[in-house]
Amino acid sequence: MNVGVIGAGRIGKIHAENLALRLPGVRVYAIADIARSAAEATARQLNIPVVTNDYREVLALPEIEAVVICSATDTHTDIIIAAAQAGKHIFCEKPIDLSLARIDAALAAVEQAHVKLQIGFNRRFDANYRRVRQAISDGEIGTPQRLHIVSRDPQPPPLSYVQVSGGMFVDMTIHDFDMARFLIGAEVEAVYTAAGVLIDPAIGAAGDVDTALIVLKFANGVIGTIDNSRQAVYGYDQRVEVFGSGGVVTTGNNYPNSAVISSGANVYRDLPLNFFLERYMNSYLTEMQAFVAAVREDQAVLVTGQDGRVPVVMGLAARRSYDENRPVRLDEIS
Amino acid sequence: MNVGVIGAGRIGKIHAENLALRLPGVRVYAIADIARSAAEATARQLNIPVVTNDYREVLALPEIEAVVICSATDTHTDIIIAAAQAGKHIFCEKPIDLSLARIDAALAAVEQAHVKLQIGFNRRFDANYRRVRQAISDGEIGTPQRLHIVSRDPQPPPLSYVQVSGGMFVDMTIHDFDMARFLIGAEVEAVYTAAGVLIDPAIGAAGDVDTALIVLKFANGVIGTIDNSRQAVYGYDQRVEVFGSGGVVTTGNNYPNSAVISSGANVYRDLPLNFFLERYMNSYLTEMQAFVAAVREDQAVLVTGQDGRVPVVMGLAARRSYDENRPVRLDEIS
Amino acid sequence: MNVGVIGAGRIGKIHAENLALRLPGVRVYAIADIARSAAEATARQLNIPVVTNDYREVLALPEIEAVVICSATDTHTDIIIAAAQAGKHIFCEKPIDLSLARIDAALAAVEQAHVKLQIGFNRRFDANYRRVRQAISDGEIGTPQRLHIVSRDPQPPPLSYVQVSGGMFVDMTIHDFDMARFLIGAEVEAVYTAAGVLIDPAIGAAGDVDTALIVLKFANGVIGTIDNSRQAVYGYDQRVEVFGSGGVVTTGNNYPNSAVISSGANVYRDLPLNFFLERYMNSYLTEMQAFVAAVREDQAVLVTGQDGRVPVVMGLAARRSYDENRPVRLDEIS
Amino acid sequence: MNVGVIGAGRIGKIHAENLALRLPGVRVYAIADIARSAAEATARQLNIPVVTNDYREVLALPEIEAVVICSATDTHTDIIIAAAQAGKHIFCEKPIDLSLARIDAALAAVEQAHVKLQIGFNRRFDANYRRVRQAISDGEIGTPQRLHIVSRDPQPPPLSYVQVSGGMFVDMTIHDFDMARFLIGAEVEAVYTAAGVLIDPAIGAAGDVDTALIVLKFANGVIGTIDNSRQAVYGYDQRVEVFGSGGVVTTGNNYPNSAVISSGANVYRDLPLNFFLERYMNSYLTEMQAFVAAVREDQAVLVTGQDGRVPVVMGLAARRSYDENRPVRLDEIS
Repeated sequence: MNVGVIGAGRIGKIHAENLALRLPGVRVYAIADIARSAAEATARQLNIPVVTNDYREVLALPEIEAVVICSATDTHTDIIIAAAQAGKHIFCEKPIDLSLARIDAALAAVEQAHVKLQIGFNRRFDANYRRVRQAISDGEIGTPQRLHIVSRDPQPPPLSYVQVSGGMFVDMTIHDFDMARFLIGAEVEAVYTAAGVLIDPAIGAAGDVDTALIVLKFANGVIGTIDNSRQAVYGYDQRVEVFGSGGVVTTGNNYPNSAVISSGANVYRDLPLNFFLERYMNSYLTEMQAFVAAVREDQAVLVTGQDGRVPVVMGLAARRSYDENRPVRLDEIS
Repeated sequence: MNVGVIGAGRIGKIHAENLALRLPGVRVYAIADIARSAAEATARQLNIPVVTNDYREVLALPEIEAVVICSATDTHTDIIIAAAQAGKHIFCEKPIDLSLARIDAALAAVEQAHVKLQIGFNRRFDANYRRVRQAISDGEIGTPQRLHIVSRDPQPPPLSYVQVSGGMFVDMTIHDFDMARFLIGAEVEAVYTAAGVLIDPAIGAAGDVDTALIVLKFANGVIGTIDNSRQAVYGYDQRVEVFGSGGVVTTGNNYPNSAVISSGANVYRDLPLNFFLERYMNSYLTEMQAFVAAVREDQAVLVTGQDGRVPVVMGLAARRSYDENRPVRLDEIS
Repeated sequence: MNVGVIGAGRIGKIHAENLALRLPGVRVYAIADIARSAAEATARQLNIPVVTNDYREVLALPEIEAVVICSATDTHTDIIIAAAQAGKHIFCEKPIDLSLARIDAALAAVEQAHVKLQIGFNRRFDANYRRVRQAISDGEIGTPQRLHIVSRDPQPPPLSYVQVSGGMFVDMTIHDFDMARFLIGAEVEAVYTAAGVLIDPAIGAAGDVDTALIVLKFANGVIGTIDNSRQAVYGYDQRVEVFGSGGVVTTGNNYPNSAVISSGANVYRDLPLNFFLERYMNSYLTEMQAFVAAVREDQAVLVTGQDGRVPVVMGLAARRSYDENRPVRLDEIS
Repeated sequence: MNVGVIGAGRIGKIHAENLALRLPGVRVYAIADIARSAAEATARQLNIPVVTNDYREVLALPEIEAVVICSATDTHTDIIIAAAQAGKHIFCEKPIDLSLARIDAALAAVEQAHVKLQIGFNRRFDANYRRVRQAISDGEIGTPQRLHIVSRDPQPPPLSYVQVSGGMFVDMTIHDFDMARFLIGAEVEAVYTAAGVLIDPAIGAAGDVDTALIVLKFANGVIGTIDNSRQAVYGYDQRVEVFGSGGVVTTGNNYPNSAVISSGANVYRDLPLNFFLERYMNSYLTEMQAFVAAVREDQAVLVTGQDGRVPVVMGLAARRSYDENRPVRLDEIS
């Protein structure tokens, strides 16, 4: 199976490496980046035969069966539509887009072309979250009643990134919106957002927030909360708790080692893994395995285009709730 | 120091025992309960000389310096006022009352009589919460930004109790409202409540909820959440997390022992302490030590009448928020 | 039930308080200490009517049903014999004595007088160890194969104490020898000791060791280890692990609170409880409850005279093993 | 850098994969196994050009710079000697051999040929143990005084393997002997072994033990213990504790996920990783990175031939101690 990678930035390189080195029978046949030198560097390292600065050249290659889209968000839908029309299966990073109209156009193109589209919500493939999902599915905690997601980054992104990110809710919280749907297995009907700028006034000046608590009201009665911060000084804080009629399941952070030291002053251990590359490295491989398997065996993907669309709606609703200080129903967003 | 105990129910007996057996130099001189036999049973066990079914007889005893009010909530303010007029120092269980007008009358009587009034928010004296407060006071986590309180009971109270309790927000959440103010050291300006009846429809039929998530907006920008359930099948779930600019502090539940067993099936330990009597037993003693010390050394009490009033306001606001599905400012409540 | 306390030192005061304040229906009727002022101080605090510097006066009181012996070790057997002859039930602190001949004389006197004798191995009544024992009894870990006891003090006792203590094995390890027998429910046949002076050369100059690892070979095939140190800078370290054919059970230390703080440097919590008074306070009460119950209900005590004798044999064998650097069978000790 | 892999069994395949897929710039050029089909299967999967059933063909290839020896233990020294004479750098699995004379001959050949030899004690490269070593090196726990290693397999190897393994001490404990030296950074002078057959009588009939406790006396006064079992029903149990004058460091097991579930019955989590392939997978990669770096940069290897020899001496001493039930000095073994 030959794959083309479009976008050779940080996440593009991770996917290219996993495809080239860790997925038997998969070959990265082409790589594109508008910065040709970035594509070339990765191509050299991984023996990728075709390098280009134009993704359309990748789509034109008949050898290629699937593409992995890791370019800038505002290019996603154009590439999805072109790839679908070229008959390529598609893996696309989150978010699909910030415009629901453009998302809908892309999803329509995918449907019409009968190609597969998987969205890069890698955390669904992380061992901790999978175990939580399993606990719910297997009835270990009874009927879910409360969901609490903690999701804090170690430090804010550069201000230049904040300014074009679309805002924390669609850039960062979007992973948590997806996780909420994935874990509970039901849709959210309304959100209420309490948020603020508690870390860096420059983020506020850019029109964004850096701290948020979002309440989710699920159709099945579950009450969810998402606790976001752009800066946890102790590292990447990624935990979840689901409480139900039969019990509660809680995950902790992942640590680089299990050593605990009791000194004369206190009992301590090293900080948790610092950021998403360490924390979720394995999930990037697992999601790509799933995508490759779905294409090869012609099965349904585990994260659909609709799964990519709904969190964008939730992000827009969360922002409106913050702006208007009131609960907002998702069906208000269109 | 001679003390009179008014109300010989579950909590009254705890206070009577602590006063009689574990506080050197303190004597329980009288005990009153409208059910005289309850007062007599406790008196026999603890060698309390005076037994009555009329609290006014206790207040009339010149030997008595202070009273501990553990009677039904709707009798609190009358007894506070009478005790203050009799010149007795007062320890009163929470909530003071469900009517702000009656609370204000009681607080005015206390102020006029120059007696001390301490409210029974015992959790402030629990070792876990004190350590969290200390972490904040000592700057161990920098400036607080997020507070998350988990407070779940092992099972709902009897329906007859639910019907007269004033509702979960003033009966159960009131402890958490106090804890929120105690830990953050600032006032709440507005609340938003998402709640429902997920455990027992009979609770809903009685006009109450059994599951709630309450968002607190503090004056200093902190965003708080309180996570309540009337039924956690694994026992009493009492945890807190405060996240700040310099770190995070988290407490866990208390367990009857530290044994962990790895079997062929999983790794397990016993359930946490089941309910508040086990979990908070020591804090009941510590709060009473503090009250006795405040009286003896004529110092300010650590939980004031105002500390007893504000959580009632918060409870009323939380209910209104739920009823009207909108954020409610505390200054709307009067 | 009237009790006499003989010895008003640290542990004597603990027992007197538990008897006087926390055991309903029990009265401390007399207290003796060769330092009369120590006895008087405790008597004043607890309203003990009779005070003396001569334990024989306590034994002469017909009102007294039982005595609690907390005096110096070298007085234990004389007092036990006299108390037995006076028909009093006896609770005696560990070790009974360092001479097996004197121990045997005391046990014979007890047997002849048909009085009860309970030895103060309080750790058997601690919640953690009881849970381990229960795990074994209930078959939760199958057939035990390995026992590992960690028992470390926060700091060495004064050198003056070391010099008269009889050595670490009969003074400190004796608790662990008892625990080994209690948990495994079988006898030890041989021991091997590796030990040294790693903390304070003065302890070595006094003929004692401060660090030891003792291997226990049980009659039922279990291999035990006891890990002792006179100085753990992080506090009192009291843990146990029992490994069996069906699993493993492990206990941790007890902590003053459950707060865990993640800072920018590491993840930490407060040190465990510092020493035996905090760590085992509750077990002192529970052992005394058991003694009182055994006397009142005329039932067998839970820690017999024989249970007090065997650990002394083990201590002597452990020392001989260290001196001769070879495994020593307990039946070599007489 | 071209590498030849000799032995295509379980561990040979792991090394071949790591070399071929995860070490940039390294190529597996040849693979040998006396079962040619095993070598062919791995060669096919990893695109290894040369396949043979005779390791001498690998050594004859001028393209090859280093060999990785994963064949049966009794072939190690012959291959080491031949490889050294062929001027190849050598990575060899543990144990080098069970005969000290043959080990010495191999080490002499390596020294004479001025090639590098690294022994496959992969656990030195595991994150948990490295952190413990760092705690000691950095002085976080002061001067080490006690070492306790727990090392238990999930189930015994097949009896056919037990019969040719040389016994548990040189087959399984050898890793722990190496770990003891690695962590403490000092040599062991004497050992004492308590052991037995508690799991499977057939192991005893084969002349081996399945349960052991080995006491290590280090030259620097540290007292060590190694706790081995061939069968821990809960999975692979690999923990260590080092106690020192300034504190204690303890590691726990590694788990597949961090989810903890509180049910109505107990609080539980999944079992730890089941065996060494999962538990130590990453350390196999890290040790090979270190070997490749040592060859490329002509630096000293981190696990020397002497590091491979001493644990064999310790294993022989441990067995003699068990046979003769006495402490055995390492210098008794020759």
